[in-house]
Amino acid sequence: MDVFGIIILGLVTALGGGLIRDVLLNDVPIALTNNLYFIVAFASTGFAITLLPLKISIRNSVIHAADAIGTGAFAVTGVVIGSNEMFSWAPCLALGMVTATGGGILRDILASRIPKVLNTQLNATGSLIGGSVTWLLIPHDLELAVLAGAVCTAVIVWVGHKGWLSMPSLR
Amino acid sequence: MDVFGIIILGLVTALGGGLIRDVLLNDVPIALTNNLYFIVAFASTGFAITLLPLKISIRNSVIHAADAIGTGAFAVTGVVIGSNEMFSWAPCLALGMVTATGGGILRDILASRIPKVLNTQLNATGSLIGGSVTWLLIPHDLELAVLAGAVCTAVIVWVGHKGWLSMPSLR
Amino acid sequence: MDVFGIIILGLVTALGGGLIRDVLLNDVPIALTNNLYFIVAFASTGFAITLLPLKISIRNSVIHAADAIGTGAFAVTGVVIGSNEMFSWAPCLALGMVTATGGGILRDILASRIPKVLNTQLNATGSLIGGSVTWLLIPHDLELAVLAGAVCTAVIVWVGHKGWLSMPSLR
Repeated sequence: MDVFGIIILGLVTALGGGLIRDVLLNDVPIALTNNLYFIVAFASTGFAITLLPLKISIRNSVIHAADAIGTGAFAVTGVVIGSNEMFSWAPCLALGMVTATGGGILRDILASRIPKVLNTQLNATGSLIGGSVTWLLIPHDLELAVLAGAVCTAVIVWVGHKGWLSMPSLR
Repeated sequence: MDVFGIIILGLVTALGGGLIRDVLLNDVPIALTNNLYFIVAFASTGFAITLLPLKISIRNSVIHAADAIGTGAFAVTGVVIGSNEMFSWAPCLALGMVTATGGGILRDILASRIPKVLNTQLNATGSLIGGSVTWLLIPHDLELAVLAGAVCTAVIVWVGHKGWLSMPSLR
Repeated sequence: MDVFGIIILGLVTALGGGLIRDVLLNDVPIALTNNLYFIVAFASTGFAITLLPLKISIRNSVIHAADAIGTGAFAVTGVVIGSNEMFSWAPCLALGMVTATGGGILRDILASRIPKVLNTQLNATGSLIGGSVTWLLIPHDLELAVLAGAVCTAVIVWVGHKGWLSMPSLR
């Protein structure tokens, strides 16, 4: 894979989840209307690529923490947006999961491998449980709902990365 | 693949075709606005998974019949919805095919393999022929159009599963 | 892969880029509202398939030239449509790239392999550079913008096919 392909994979991973969510909601993807999304995603990808030839490797724990925090934030965003559009629980939780895991799924599809979320990771489970917390708390206190849901998702994802817990595998 | 991944694959197979159709038509997917879709798909997937450890295997003929009936119903839905939106023949037939085969295509993309519809199955051909029947009959009698198109599609798909007929393969 | 699958791959390659673009822009895909797109794509695919058993092989240089010209035209279309909708530079260039490379990406996803654009080809780079030329010239002269952008993209894609230049590969 060439440099350009890697940049595209980075952008897709960062922006893909919100993009799928917006397409499903029939909105023009926010990444198209607000340049900031592109610029931040592009800068982060570029930064990561420049580290490669410097042989500076990012420790796994840093990547896992970033993934856990990101998944938590994304899952909650999906649920809140769905609830703003007055959807009921099932689509809200689905939008949370899609926002949180869609980017990684698109990345793995482009890299022609089975998406990691379908396999051993707790990212989907975490965003489902954290999203439910958010969904239940939204009528009471939006800020609490966002915070509790994101933390709950992040903790579950992190536990999954640590290998302390995993979904049962059907052979 | 873990239990969660299999549930996702089940949901995607069941809801994916209509989802792609609605996205193309610029509608909010019906699976997001009506919880019943989620619940039925989730219950069916859950039921199938619980059979696995019980070593109860569903006979191939049952799966093939279910696939034939489902493909027939989905193909006709796509054509009727397209025709309601006043599209001409080509997009109507395309919407029928997408509704009927999109779920299986998404499933195979996620499972990182070449979609079965592109290979030996008669599902795409069947929904095209059955969809044409529906399209031709809609101006005369909607109920007859739906019935004839669905039966025609189902029979062709079933003949394909039986192996009595297959599309010529280009090596 | 059977004949039907190959026809689908042909249609997807031809229409997929514009389809993704229109879905992102929240428009009903133009291929659904104007039959001409289907008919031309279908006729071209059918023509190419009939050549196969005749052992008439199309020379690589013809395929490369067609790909270069098509990529140029598609990239410019995406940028112009984005600019008509008053998007800023980043989404316009992204729409150009998606229109130009989306069809091939969908084709490779269906064929279960890593998209060629992510690998050694200059198609994505070319549509980015050519699209920038178009974007810069649109305020001055639309016709010049279209022509210059398309030629610029086509030349870069062609240079890539010739193997004279390629993106640096990371390992």
